[in-house]
Amino acid sequence: MKKHNFSAGPCILPESVLQKASEAIVNFNNDNLSLIEISHRSKPFVDVMENARSLALELLGLENKGYKALFLHGGASTQFLMTAYNLLNKKAAYLNTGTWSDKAIKEAKLFGEIVEVASSKDKNFNYIPKGYKIPTDVDYFHCTSNNTIFGTQIKNFPEFNGVNVCDMSSDIFSRQLDFSKFDLIYAGAQKNMGPAGTTLVIIKEEILGKVNRAIPSMLDYKVHIDKDSMFNTPAVFPIYVSMLTLEWLKELGGIPFIEKVNNQKATLLYNEIDRNPLFKGYAAKEDRSHMNATFNLVDHSLTETFDTMWKEAQINGLNGHRSVGGYRASMYNALPLFSVQALVDVMQELERKA
Amino acid sequence: MKKHNFSAGPCILPESVLQKASEAIVNFNNDNLSLIEISHRSKPFVDVMENARSLALELLGLENKGYKALFLHGGASTQFLMTAYNLLNKKAAYLNTGTWSDKAIKEAKLFGEIVEVASSKDKNFNYIPKGYKIPTDVDYFHCTSNNTIFGTQIKNFPEFNGVNVCDMSSDIFSRQLDFSKFDLIYAGAQKNMGPAGTTLVIIKEEILGKVNRAIPSMLDYKVHIDKDSMFNTPAVFPIYVSMLTLEWLKELGGIPFIEKVNNQKATLLYNEIDRNPLFKGYAAKEDRSHMNATFNLVDHSLTETFDTMWKEAQINGLNGHRSVGGYRASMYNALPLFSVQALVDVMQELERKA
Repeated sequence: MKKHNFSAGPCILPESVLQKASEAIVNFNNDNLSLIEISHRSKPFVDVMENARSLALELLGLENKGYKALFLHGGASTQFLMTAYNLLNKKAAYLNTGTWSDKAIKEAKLFGEIVEVASSKDKNFNYIPKGYKIPTDVDYFHCTSNNTIFGTQIKNFPEFNGVNVCDMSSDIFSRQLDFSKFDLIYAGAQKNMGPAGTTLVIIKEEILGKVNRAIPSMLDYKVHIDKDSMFNTPAVFPIYVSMLTLEWLKELGGIPFIEKVNNQKATLLYNEIDRNPLFKGYAAKEDRSHMNATFNLVDHSLTETFDTMWKEAQINGLNGHRSVGGYRASMYNALPLFSVQALVDVMQELERKA
Repeated sequence: MKKHNFSAGPCILPESVLQKASEAIVNFNNDNLSLIEISHRSKPFVDVMENARSLALELLGLENKGYKALFLHGGASTQFLMTAYNLLNKKAAYLNTGTWSDKAIKEAKLFGEIVEVASSKDKNFNYIPKGYKIPTDVDYFHCTSNNTIFGTQIKNFPEFNGVNVCDMSSDIFSRQLDFSKFDLIYAGAQKNMGPAGTTLVIIKEEILGKVNRAIPSMLDYKVHIDKDSMFNTPAVFPIYVSMLTLEWLKELGGIPFIEKVNNQKATLLYNEIDRNPLFKGYAAKEDRSHMNATFNLVDHSLTETFDTMWKEAQINGLNGHRSVGGYRASMYNALPLFSVQALVDVMQELERKA
């Protein structure tokens, strides 16, 4: 039996996608060759790349609006430095909502002055700062839409009249947003999109070409745009699986459909966390992430019993990050509602037993 | 029937490796989870990473000699800039043997003065320069061991008493060398090791920490060494397949065994190129690559006939790179001798027909 996979990432992917991906490793397109042993310049793979790029723009509603989609190497961690390398002349504004924002700030500081417009570090990042001001003289504003570790998510993005950059690694394709408010969106694939090893970059071309420094080719967005995301050999398999997952999402009904399912899953779990006297949530209620629910036992002496119970229920990946402790249930797009129900059942069983 | 896959990269991988990789996508380690949906911090994947890293050092004979093996993002193209970022203070020496050397030089120039010690550009890179001098006051010497596009390969590396850097992307693990003569070896996985999406870096720790510039974390070898090649989410699937391929190579008898097979394959094909009056080789004989054989028809009017014949014989990926034209037969480790025989048979059939 397949496990209920609450892993924070790399994480659950749709069963049908895994099946197709597995087949492509031995025989891709019925051409008697593996997907991973053909040239990336061959038509079958160029088609994959183009399909993945256009699906990404289509699902986000960003076709014909001056955006390009790229599948780059290096994970979101490389985007921390690439955004600054390509966009930061003098000063940039960053919102600090936890570990990933913090890392982005650290890398950007090598390239210019960073204004931290607000931080929720005072409460170990269990909320999203609000009401802060973004200086008007910055090259761009950067934020992290969802914080996997702390289980918080930005519900209302600030209105900023300059260049808006957002790390959406852990909630892209999960909810409806006006994505055209952003000029640069990046996301490591390994949450709602595919396996680790590729990063989606959605970029408005007009924001480029405004810094003076020389940019090494692999770090230059313009180079990748000009080469249709094929400047060097791309990460063939992670991009193929991302394409399959985006196709799966489109067939289901796109972001509007999956957002409803994600809301159902989040409501089911958060209701139980709030109702069940044995548990308490970690993040501020209004900032709760619909992707990663962080919670803990009120009475830690129940830890061993609870841990045994959810493992026996074939639940996987529920341990919280060491920065927060407790539990973290990651409910990415591919996680079915019945997996959340399975977890809720265990929480209720614990209540009966305790 | 499986095709005879002469693709230049991504390229043929062992059948048994593809089979295991395909299975791991649906059920890894019989744990009812896919390899690509488990945490990279989980024991099963940490074991994969550690196994891949130690197999790489073991096969190269570099265990306990101060080297670390890393599996990084970004392809060899990222190494072009990382080597310079990490090692280049003032001046470095580069040997230019073609497209890949040329690209490495271009990126390095952003970080310091580059001395091109020799180039074979005068003859469209169909030979390896010899007898050049490497200045003693450079931070390092860089060369490309095998040139996929032009079909040349360095047989005797220069004796240089400083830091030796080598791009071995297309012939690592294919022949015996004293690898301890090099301080930094890098290789994109997608030739003799695995699928595109990860790059092996073998580095002697003592060469680091000698430049003054600040290095972004993702570009800093020291950061990756300190985090056991897990600073950020690694490219899980490409690394797993690389591990399987390195295990396959070890079981066969390692580099000494595969070198013999590679010599047999190269001898078979080059003998036919030299014997058959319809064909001529491109690279200088003494510099011929045992990985990529470049050749052409003497009479171009036979092109259509020959192309139809090899395609009918289930041969794939034989077209030469646009910089050279003609044909290129890539004979990486996983290509069986009978595939080379199949190509030679077609060449001989053409001779009978013509």
